[in-house]
Amino acid sequence: MNKEQLFEQIKAKRSFLCIGLDTDILKIPAHLKDTSDPIFAFNKEIIDATQDLCVAYKPNLAFYESLGVAGWVALEKTVNYIREKYPEQFIIADAKRGDIGNTSNLYARAFFDHMDFDAVTVAPYMGEDSVKPFMTYLDRWVILLALTSNKGAFDFQFLKDEESGDQLYESVLKTSQTWGTTDNMMYVVGATKAENLEGIRELVPDHFLLVPGVGAQGGSLEEVAKYGMNDHCGLLVNSSRAIIYASNDEDFAEKARMAAMDVQVDMEELLLEADLL
Amino acid sequence: MNKEQLFEQIKAKRSFLCIGLDTDILKIPAHLKDTSDPIFAFNKEIIDATQDLCVAYKPNLAFYESLGVAGWVALEKTVNYIREKYPEQFIIADAKRGDIGNTSNLYARAFFDHMDFDAVTVAPYMGEDSVKPFMTYLDRWVILLALTSNKGAFDFQFLKDEESGDQLYESVLKTSQTWGTTDNMMYVVGATKAENLEGIRELVPDHFLLVPGVGAQGGSLEEVAKYGMNDHCGLLVNSSRAIIYASNDEDFAEKARMAAMDVQVDMEELLLEADLL
Repeated sequence: MNKEQLFEQIKAKRSFLCIGLDTDILKIPAHLKDTSDPIFAFNKEIIDATQDLCVAYKPNLAFYESLGVAGWVALEKTVNYIREKYPEQFIIADAKRGDIGNTSNLYARAFFDHMDFDAVTVAPYMGEDSVKPFMTYLDRWVILLALTSNKGAFDFQFLKDEESGDQLYESVLKTSQTWGTTDNMMYVVGATKAENLEGIRELVPDHFLLVPGVGAQGGSLEEVAKYGMNDHCGLLVNSSRAIIYASNDEDFAEKARMAAMDVQVDMEELLLEADLL
Repeated sequence: MNKEQLFEQIKAKRSFLCIGLDTDILKIPAHLKDTSDPIFAFNKEIIDATQDLCVAYKPNLAFYESLGVAGWVALEKTVNYIREKYPEQFIIADAKRGDIGNTSNLYARAFFDHMDFDAVTVAPYMGEDSVKPFMTYLDRWVILLALTSNKGAFDFQFLKDEESGDQLYESVLKTSQTWGTTDNMMYVVGATKAENLEGIRELVPDHFLLVPGVGAQGGSLEEVAKYGMNDHCGLLVNSSRAIIYASNDEDFAEKARMAAMDVQVDMEELLLEADLL
């Protein structure tokens, strides 16, 4: 999927919502725990209940890895299910990988060959050769960490380079633009740092941004849209816990749908205000 | 395993070698490819042939993930095999993970609860809360990326902070020392940057360093020992391809042993010179 196709989906769905499948075996409803694959059973119901309200799903790899082999089975089934039943969805492996080129090649093989993800989140610390292998696949994306939504973001991401005067996350945004295009590269920018979005948009006016931190982490959708939206929307805003754990009873899928719809309605309004629909 | 126990192993084996299990299905000998689990069959023979010459094994997760579920099965079997048959070995998940605290908790669960690794490599970009969850486990380690062995290390790791004058990898070394102790934290420092080891030892005199890049990537063991060794050795030097792919014929395990022995002999000499044996 390229940038234009993603924007078409956003207009069709009137939504730029990404739903994070942070599926924790400890948090899913009790009645699912006796099924043969509770994680997949949960995901399938969440996906069926929300697919018309979002443009992307983002399984967080840690939740699957924590279950070992059973987790990987559930992950592969989830990706295949989305790909087959809702092929218009953009599927993000939230993996935060990144290693020397030789090794990143293999991570790319894992997410783009072995599984059918559209995108993978990548950490920038190891630089260009750790990132580029993911961009050798046609219509697949790297989503590079720039400014993250957590407290630890303040440890290093704001360090200011003596020579350029850029903070680290700004150096990442500037330097990495030569590695890819607006059709194969996005950036992670946390909603909890919305005040920085204006400056970020000056550096990367045309790239899509993946924005976590709305919802459980406290970020504001309105602020994100105000400072982050561009003429092709340019935003995928993620919500995980606030949607998938809206209820942990038998009505979990229905409640997830209602939570997703609340967000979609707000997004539709923001897209209309920006004259994009 | 704590720092003292690791040093005891180094003295007993007269070696500070870590063997990287970067096992690529495309590179293993043809005669193994018909077995039911070629990756595990390869690892098992490599381990049996080298276990008295090294103190650590380091499976690189990308190689296993690239095979999906079958790869995870092979990985779990490999870790269990080492743990049961050679319990004195230090086992490192070379995973380069790191995410918000809530998610890093789950990665820790994956590597320390679900599997029985001693340590996991972690990327520092997201800061303290992305790293600390790994250190809540007794006798388990974080190995934090500081200065990596690849070309991309020059993109960001040498950026110099305006306020402190520290380069990014130095800020990582300084800031992160408050997060853990010398008994649950090591740093990755590439052998290809041996000239920086002297300064790194001033910042972290007592921490163990995991040093990749000797062998296929061109780093020098003598240089690493000269600038990096401390009074409890303080080094785990990794070699992957130069050992495990010393031959890709039926004699691969024997040739791997010979390659490992070449390194062990050099290491024994360096330990003797440093008066540590």
